[in-house]
Amino acid sequence: MPFFDLPASDLPGYRSQATTPDDFDAFWDETLAEARKTPLDAVFVPRDAGLTLFDVCDVSFSGFGGHRVRGWYIKPAGRPVADCVVKFIGYGGGRDQPQQHLLWPATGRAVLVMDTRGQGSSWAVSDTPDPVGSGPAHPGYMTRGIQDPRDYYYRRVFVDGVRAVEAARSRPEIDPERIVVAGGSQGGGISIAVAGLDARVRGLMADVPFLCDFPRAIGLTARDPYGEIVRFLMVHRDKVEAAYRTLSYFDGVNFARRAKASALFSAAMMDDVCPPSTVYGAFNAYAGPKAIETYTFNNHEGGGTLHECRQIEWLARLG
Amino acid sequence: MPFFDLPASDLPGYRSQATTPDDFDAFWDETLAEARKTPLDAVFVPRDAGLTLFDVCDVSFSGFGGHRVRGWYIKPAGRPVADCVVKFIGYGGGRDQPQQHLLWPATGRAVLVMDTRGQGSSWAVSDTPDPVGSGPAHPGYMTRGIQDPRDYYYRRVFVDGVRAVEAARSRPEIDPERIVVAGGSQGGGISIAVAGLDARVRGLMADVPFLCDFPRAIGLTARDPYGEIVRFLMVHRDKVEAAYRTLSYFDGVNFARRAKASALFSAAMMDDVCPPSTVYGAFNAYAGPKAIETYTFNNHEGGGTLHECRQIEWLARLG
Amino acid sequence: MPFFDLPASDLPGYRSQATTPDDFDAFWDETLAEARKTPLDAVFVPRDAGLTLFDVCDVSFSGFGGHRVRGWYIKPAGRPVADCVVKFIGYGGGRDQPQQHLLWPATGRAVLVMDTRGQGSSWAVSDTPDPVGSGPAHPGYMTRGIQDPRDYYYRRVFVDGVRAVEAARSRPEIDPERIVVAGGSQGGGISIAVAGLDARVRGLMADVPFLCDFPRAIGLTARDPYGEIVRFLMVHRDKVEAAYRTLSYFDGVNFARRAKASALFSAAMMDDVCPPSTVYGAFNAYAGPKAIETYTFNNHEGGGTLHECRQIEWLARLG
Amino acid sequence: MPFFDLPASDLPGYRSQATTPDDFDAFWDETLAEARKTPLDAVFVPRDAGLTLFDVCDVSFSGFGGHRVRGWYIKPAGRPVADCVVKFIGYGGGRDQPQQHLLWPATGRAVLVMDTRGQGSSWAVSDTPDPVGSGPAHPGYMTRGIQDPRDYYYRRVFVDGVRAVEAARSRPEIDPERIVVAGGSQGGGISIAVAGLDARVRGLMADVPFLCDFPRAIGLTARDPYGEIVRFLMVHRDKVEAAYRTLSYFDGVNFARRAKASALFSAAMMDDVCPPSTVYGAFNAYAGPKAIETYTFNNHEGGGTLHECRQIEWLARLG
Amino acid sequence: MPFFDLPASDLPGYRSQATTPDDFDAFWDETLAEARKTPLDAVFVPRDAGLTLFDVCDVSFSGFGGHRVRGWYIKPAGRPVADCVVKFIGYGGGRDQPQQHLLWPATGRAVLVMDTRGQGSSWAVSDTPDPVGSGPAHPGYMTRGIQDPRDYYYRRVFVDGVRAVEAARSRPEIDPERIVVAGGSQGGGISIAVAGLDARVRGLMADVPFLCDFPRAIGLTARDPYGEIVRFLMVHRDKVEAAYRTLSYFDGVNFARRAKASALFSAAMMDDVCPPSTVYGAFNAYAGPKAIETYTFNNHEGGGTLHECRQIEWLARLG
Amino acid sequence: MPFFDLPASDLPGYRSQATTPDDFDAFWDETLAEARKTPLDAVFVPRDAGLTLFDVCDVSFSGFGGHRVRGWYIKPAGRPVADCVVKFIGYGGGRDQPQQHLLWPATGRAVLVMDTRGQGSSWAVSDTPDPVGSGPAHPGYMTRGIQDPRDYYYRRVFVDGVRAVEAARSRPEIDPERIVVAGGSQGGGISIAVAGLDARVRGLMADVPFLCDFPRAIGLTARDPYGEIVRFLMVHRDKVEAAYRTLSYFDGVNFARRAKASALFSAAMMDDVCPPSTVYGAFNAYAGPKAIETYTFNNHEGGGTLHECRQIEWLARLG
Repeated sequence: MPFFDLPASDLPGYRSQATTPDDFDAFWDETLAEARKTPLDAVFVPRDAGLTLFDVCDVSFSGFGGHRVRGWYIKPAGRPVADCVVKFIGYGGGRDQPQQHLLWPATGRAVLVMDTRGQGSSWAVSDTPDPVGSGPAHPGYMTRGIQDPRDYYYRRVFVDGVRAVEAARSRPEIDPERIVVAGGSQGGGISIAVAGLDARVRGLMADVPFLCDFPRAIGLTARDPYGEIVRFLMVHRDKVEAAYRTLSYFDGVNFARRAKASALFSAAMMDDVCPPSTVYGAFNAYAGPKAIETYTFNNHEGGGTLHECRQIEWLARLG
Repeated sequence: MPFFDLPASDLPGYRSQATTPDDFDAFWDETLAEARKTPLDAVFVPRDAGLTLFDVCDVSFSGFGGHRVRGWYIKPAGRPVADCVVKFIGYGGGRDQPQQHLLWPATGRAVLVMDTRGQGSSWAVSDTPDPVGSGPAHPGYMTRGIQDPRDYYYRRVFVDGVRAVEAARSRPEIDPERIVVAGGSQGGGISIAVAGLDARVRGLMADVPFLCDFPRAIGLTARDPYGEIVRFLMVHRDKVEAAYRTLSYFDGVNFARRAKASALFSAAMMDDVCPPSTVYGAFNAYAGPKAIETYTFNNHEGGGTLHECRQIEWLARLG
Repeated sequence: MPFFDLPASDLPGYRSQATTPDDFDAFWDETLAEARKTPLDAVFVPRDAGLTLFDVCDVSFSGFGGHRVRGWYIKPAGRPVADCVVKFIGYGGGRDQPQQHLLWPATGRAVLVMDTRGQGSSWAVSDTPDPVGSGPAHPGYMTRGIQDPRDYYYRRVFVDGVRAVEAARSRPEIDPERIVVAGGSQGGGISIAVAGLDARVRGLMADVPFLCDFPRAIGLTARDPYGEIVRFLMVHRDKVEAAYRTLSYFDGVNFARRAKASALFSAAMMDDVCPPSTVYGAFNAYAGPKAIETYTFNNHEGGGTLHECRQIEWLARLG
Repeated sequence: MPFFDLPASDLPGYRSQATTPDDFDAFWDETLAEARKTPLDAVFVPRDAGLTLFDVCDVSFSGFGGHRVRGWYIKPAGRPVADCVVKFIGYGGGRDQPQQHLLWPATGRAVLVMDTRGQGSSWAVSDTPDPVGSGPAHPGYMTRGIQDPRDYYYRRVFVDGVRAVEAARSRPEIDPERIVVAGGSQGGGISIAVAGLDARVRGLMADVPFLCDFPRAIGLTARDPYGEIVRFLMVHRDKVEAAYRTLSYFDGVNFARRAKASALFSAAMMDDVCPPSTVYGAFNAYAGPKAIETYTFNNHEGGGTLHECRQIEWLARLG
Repeated sequence: MPFFDLPASDLPGYRSQATTPDDFDAFWDETLAEARKTPLDAVFVPRDAGLTLFDVCDVSFSGFGGHRVRGWYIKPAGRPVADCVVKFIGYGGGRDQPQQHLLWPATGRAVLVMDTRGQGSSWAVSDTPDPVGSGPAHPGYMTRGIQDPRDYYYRRVFVDGVRAVEAARSRPEIDPERIVVAGGSQGGGISIAVAGLDARVRGLMADVPFLCDFPRAIGLTARDPYGEIVRFLMVHRDKVEAAYRTLSYFDGVNFARRAKASALFSAAMMDDVCPPSTVYGAFNAYAGPKAIETYTFNNHEGGGTLHECRQIEWLARLG
Repeated sequence: MPFFDLPASDLPGYRSQATTPDDFDAFWDETLAEARKTPLDAVFVPRDAGLTLFDVCDVSFSGFGGHRVRGWYIKPAGRPVADCVVKFIGYGGGRDQPQQHLLWPATGRAVLVMDTRGQGSSWAVSDTPDPVGSGPAHPGYMTRGIQDPRDYYYRRVFVDGVRAVEAARSRPEIDPERIVVAGGSQGGGISIAVAGLDARVRGLMADVPFLCDFPRAIGLTARDPYGEIVRFLMVHRDKVEAAYRTLSYFDGVNFARRAKASALFSAAMMDDVCPPSTVYGAFNAYAGPKAIETYTFNNHEGGGTLHECRQIEWLARLG
């Protein structure tokens, strides 16, 4: 992969041209208010996964539309814990098996991993359906309901994400002020949205985040998932404007502009899934305390385990 | 594309190993009975498409679940017509613009083209949503609801297809005994299913049909859409048996075994989307009068316009 | 496909650097004069293609060098007709079967479809040989005779195109002032050339036209057919100048500069076969009344059936 | 990926044609005897990786030639532990960061992860050089020294593997009879070799193992790393016999024939890196108690996290 | 490239199913008789190529239809020479520069290199046009005139090849009984044809020869140039029989059956351009004294420079 | 391949940003001094390769570390010779068979071809091992020892190159002042280095040279071998600075700055292995008399045999 995006030296000064719809806040306030009419009903069922050092629970709670969303809750066994990382998953994956999520528990924290509804069949299993159909859509999840923000797939997912944080807060051992949201790629995009929608979130770790700076991302890269939108509009030549309008309600840039949590981002200069300028589009707009690591020779794998080490340190410093 | 499937000389003797579930008939009888509880309510709205030689109508009718399904109805203007071809579309496409469907009207017949619900965003536009959600599924339509035949996506589509024939029959100018179902690839698969479910269908033209002989097709070819099932099972390693069971309710081989209409199939020896043996799996099982054209050096484009000429002649002979 | 060409906002102001040889007009005047020494001898043989709504004729006429060129002539059966669209085919294709060309007849016009000599074996059948050999050439048609404009393959093809218009005019039912030339890709390139060579042509519809703005096109895209020229020059390192000189006699930009017909162009922003700037190179140079539709998310499929609808409307307005 | 190897039903009866050199045992006895002349000198340096639930040590010991080999040793903090899994890494990777290896510690065991010398630059970092040069070799590690078994790269690696087990045994808390060797792909191949060379090893978990059944693997698949051998022999046309002879000293089939540990293998039917028949070549030859899981729709990812769950259960049953 | 053709052990027993047309001999006798009506008129013009050890001449002679064919004639300077290798070039190439052909002159022989008419623009320059046009043909040379053996492109090329041998014989220093024909791929195919058509040829060296055993080759490999025929027949679905009939007049198997020269063939087991079984199809049918080298791990590069060494030895033994 | 690098008109003015380490001269002086402590011991063993016009010798001499390096020495038989071209080989290749190197001997010069240690297994055979191991490295040769200039692989190769010139000078028939170094790609890079390290070299012919202008090359192209460095740094995210520092000791730009020989470079505008700007980076910095040929439509094949002709003329003019 050769370099293809802005030079690294231009990224700190880059400003996204993503616009915020006038009713952005109203849209989300109403959306969340409606969702909260259904009780959260977070249920934690112990699961023997053979991981004797940890307590593992199969989680479920009511997300968007009252639909039940699954996940894992894992914490060190026989130790006090107060911090919780709420983790979101990359595109096409799911909560998978509990042993995939031991990093934060190994540092003494709890982790709550949320399934992404309807996904979980491309590289990791999920157990959460998306009971909502859609208009004509391209294979994948990016264009389901793209003609109207109220129907758009990520409206449901972002509400699920906010509710996942609430589920974590419902645990008696967890300090409700000590929730960190985290994820890579789509998981990073959901994290940014949740941080923008829940002002109590303490920290945000977004790695090579997806769903940011749509106006720049679409057409800058041919790869999926942004490519799904291109291919949808290739067929639906008369729906370009409606699609861009819908996406403006879900652009990480707009959530970043109202987030307050301390944030650690990461980007990669050769990332042609989530190009670095689109990550900086969100990062530069981010309203809270922030830091970013940029990896020069990486594609969408980003900073990998080295960045995990930096996240361990950053979380420790966050206190 | 080199030859990869059985030698041509072995195809006439090939027998599919697809099994018919004991309750196959009951499943479909109940499914159709339930669908027919909702009135068909076929609506034909004239559309000025600038095609002065033809009358074009925007069609809608109630398909599975009472969901409205769209299509085009096109017939020669100012001429009597009695025959109707009901045409189904290939995977990912939709009814598109009316001018895409002039072949059968140009021969003096009517055509009713049915949208495939939820599709229509990969290469041709559709206007029909699929308002039903699904469990975790691979991008695409092949694995939506694959864990239970009652939830499977093609249950809805095949019912829509049966209802499309009923919509054609509802036209006063059309002789209800002179309906031919037709389509290529997925459209061929739907045609076979409809011919198996509606004993009054007079003719069937199925080109390089998809959705036939799943036990052989899955793993014989890596290409989509069969490949979607492989990739789903790659992730859902513990759902293989359930998926195969579900698919047995939708296998063209099983519909072929109970079809009665006169049929013209086509297959292509280098087709790695719908391999020729899987087409012969259905053709050899087909219970009605039948013929097949096999194109030696073609992939999924099959017999193309040459086969159209042969279909024109075949339809003329069908009388 | 990511965007790779000039930004859309720069296209209206782009000016091609294609130069017009001093003897461009003389070259073509002599070429046409020589061709017209052979009588056109347009022959129309009725063909029963089973398309009962249309009269179909197998056409042949004398093109370049007196060589017989084939085509189809199709018009509504039993109706008066005065307008004729002369249609040219994309690279590698041929006239195929008559049913491929029903769009304009369905609007009440005649269509005359011209085979492209020697082609017709890549995706659609033709029946017209090219009885002229060539010097060493790369596989394909782009470099046959490229060392001298008098030997160049498209000299023969463009003459054939002018003669095809004359064949259409030879029909008694056709108003000789109501000929529109049309085509996509290579067909668009031929259309522009014919419009530049025949001042009586009334309309031009050129979709994602090929053979335009060679100086920009060569090396901007790696894909065929422009890529054939690159690969020829890769081997014939010492023939670059001669090749560019030859191409200047065949560049759509130069034909556009002297065309008079009303024109509707189309371009696609992700078209890496005929990049949008090369289409604008011809469009911006076009001397007659003109309009262009630009499709943002399309590759070489351009505006597809949606653009057909716009062409139907545009033709209706052309009167 | 379509199925390409033997049908699943033929695998249990498949017998590898790999031959055992007459001096196979002598070769390895001498090799190990020579290596053991250098003291093991296993050093465990505590490392603060921020993983508070675990004790992490940076390990080094003397492998082949007395060269220092690095790794991680990780065990639950503040708990008794007696079992140790010695884990080997897939081709091109290295020990990476400690958090990559928490699975077995999370079950209450220790893990010792061994770097593969010279590798560790393709997808995961290692810190262990290979100070031995080689004759002309193809890029990669598969053909270094392939002309003589004494020079072959994997002679050094397999000795390192035996020494890694000895390093684990040197820990006072570890029961020397409770060592399990494990790994996927190359790591599986090394595990099999070590189980064949160290009769005290208690268990073996080899997933989609590489380095097995060379006579069948070479030329059955085009993918690397087996493909490196093909490409080397493509150039070195006169060294085929010498290369095959060398490989016979390193074939997992030959180690399997003398292994005694209880073994759990896994294979995948669509694995074109380590084809399933080559895995069964080793498994069917395996002399100890054994079981195998075969995943039908998987390529080299094999059983993934589902197989990890099965390994957790299998290890628990092993006691 | 994995193995894909018959196992090596089956090759010696393989028999091609290529049939010989009844009038094969008559066809070629008439063809050659007609060609010889035009005087050969071999002209040798000295060229200073800076290669002081050799005499280099630019050659031309009258081939098929009296068309002038170019080549190089190179021999050691200031030394007696009696042997001449007549060398034919692979598909798409040409005679290139003289320094490309020093191997046989370096062994003390002369070499006459023949351009392949019309080619020479894909990887090496030629200077020989093919002044004959063709019917609709796929890009490339394989399907030009394929509907009739009298029109087929290789009829012209094979005649050129026979005439090239005659041009070599016209040199006073060359012993007319000491001509060896040689070439790789297409050059090997031409060599076999020439050896079958000229009974005085003393030796034949055919490496990975093309144009052999068409019935097996077509569809066994997807790669060009055989792939051109597949793609032509993909479009011309109704010309399969005619094409196969034409090819039977040009199949190396049929020339091999009547050749008398001593022959050294080579084949490669992973050659998917000219699969090994097709080479053995010709070799096993070869009527003269013969030997073959088979390279196990090579694709179309075959035995490369190692085989050149073997050819040097074989030629020396031929005396 | 479309154009991707700087426009041709910008290349003459382009200046590389490669920096020269302060101790660059000292590093190389010490390196060469150390190497010269081992006697050269150039051995020339006659080899009968069947090439009767030439004397062929199997060469060996002591290169870096006293390791024996192999090669061929070929000169016209029975003629006086004074000039010698010392030729270096492209990446992955080796000295191969003698007949590969007849060009310069055919012009009346001697040639000494040097094996590249450890390579020679990707496309041409070598016979020279590299007995030095390395730290963790990516498959290939580019990252062996990249963490320290003293350990870097090319330190050994460049010393071998200087010694190869000394071996040529050791021949009694060769005029030690009439040595020209030459090579393409890696061979060009070695040539530039040797010309920079040995002030007596008379001429340099560097075609599409590799190993030039690392700061621009890395990340400009994704292809190997520069791509190996990118992929190494993708994994070794924390070693970027060390790698760049090491490479600065081996950058052709720095050798060019101190070279004195007359030079003929070549570059190709579509070369995405050794992009043209990187070649101009070295050429523009070159301190001696110089000329460059730039091929517009070529990738890494560059000027091919046409450029050989130009080199023949250039060498003749060099006198």
